[in-house]
Amino acid sequence: MARKQGSHSDITGPKVQAAALRLFAQHGFAAVSMRQIASEVGVQAGALYNYTPDKQTLLFELLRTHMEALLKAWDSIERPIDPLAALKCFTEFHIAYHSDRPDQVFISYMELRNLSAENFAQIQALRRGYEQILEDILHAGHDSGLMNVPDIRVTSMALIALLTGLNNWFRESGRLSLADIQGQYWLMVRGAVAAVDQT
Amino acid sequence: MARKQGSHSDITGPKVQAAALRLFAQHGFAAVSMRQIASEVGVQAGALYNYTPDKQTLLFELLRTHMEALLKAWDSIERPIDPLAALKCFTEFHIAYHSDRPDQVFISYMELRNLSAENFAQIQALRRGYEQILEDILHAGHDSGLMNVPDIRVTSMALIALLTGLNNWFRESGRLSLADIQGQYWLMVRGAVAAVDQT
Repeated sequence: MARKQGSHSDITGPKVQAAALRLFAQHGFAAVSMRQIASEVGVQAGALYNYTPDKQTLLFELLRTHMEALLKAWDSIERPIDPLAALKCFTEFHIAYHSDRPDQVFISYMELRNLSAENFAQIQALRRGYEQILEDILHAGHDSGLMNVPDIRVTSMALIALLTGLNNWFRESGRLSLADIQGQYWLMVRGAVAAVDQT
Repeated sequence: MARKQGSHSDITGPKVQAAALRLFAQHGFAAVSMRQIASEVGVQAGALYNYTPDKQTLLFELLRTHMEALLKAWDSIERPIDPLAALKCFTEFHIAYHSDRPDQVFISYMELRNLSAENFAQIQALRRGYEQILEDILHAGHDSGLMNVPDIRVTSMALIALLTGLNNWFRESGRLSLADIQGQYWLMVRGAVAAVDQT
């Protein structure tokens, strides 16, 4: 499986992706040219087309790779059956995964507008797949009476926003460890779906 | 106070702002030229400089205007003293105000990266002012024992993300009225800060 020496394209491909990610996150997709990406990688502009047919494909591949890696990462962890434990697991997983990848998360929200209709549909399907994981947990929690979630879709979108929003300010907050953050967010998530009467 | 006929600049100023907002939201600040904005407004590129010295100022003014209007809108409503009622009021206000202004909200998050350091500091101060409103409510709630908010800053940032995240998906959801959404989000917000033991 592993080859000792990567071919030219094995090495340059990831470099192109990394450069495009950095530049898109910093300046926005529409402001970045293929020439700039080539210059950042250190290849001729023409050589870039060995790795990607166009800038649209580059953006799409970045978003697709991000979503597929996220889904795979979730599949690879041990997930509890109990809905509350599963929700805690999802909360901690989501925070750890996303806080580690600020540029990917940023462009995944910002650059949806710049995807072609066909590419957008594919990314949306992957996003729906991830949302479905949370929705399944909320369904199980609600049905078992462990949670009160009158509208699964509303709650899942709200919780994902709550968790992902951490990326807007986490870097400001050297005072808190990731584990502190996970603990505090879990208290909020648990409260938001609590099956207790809080009237 | 009101003049029957606006001067040329009274009329064109808001048009420039509206065009810049639309174009920045659609393509991103860095990808939009002053020439494009002028063309959208229907004036010569040179004429644009009667209204704004440069694109940076245009962006700054959009974000400043948005934040100042938001703070003013909050000041103008009747706000309950009771911390839980105040939190409900804040929740409903935030949702109504932001869901009505998707482009402003979008660029307020996306284009912070493109503000000059000095302009960024001013916008951050306005944002802190808004966050402080929520933090004061949470403080009062926690101190009175009506809420359990171990870290005011973490909770305020999380709740603002939860509420603002609505803009990512609300348009998909013709099935729900704004009042439905406000009601459901309030249940989640109330739960997230609940002073009950949910262990």
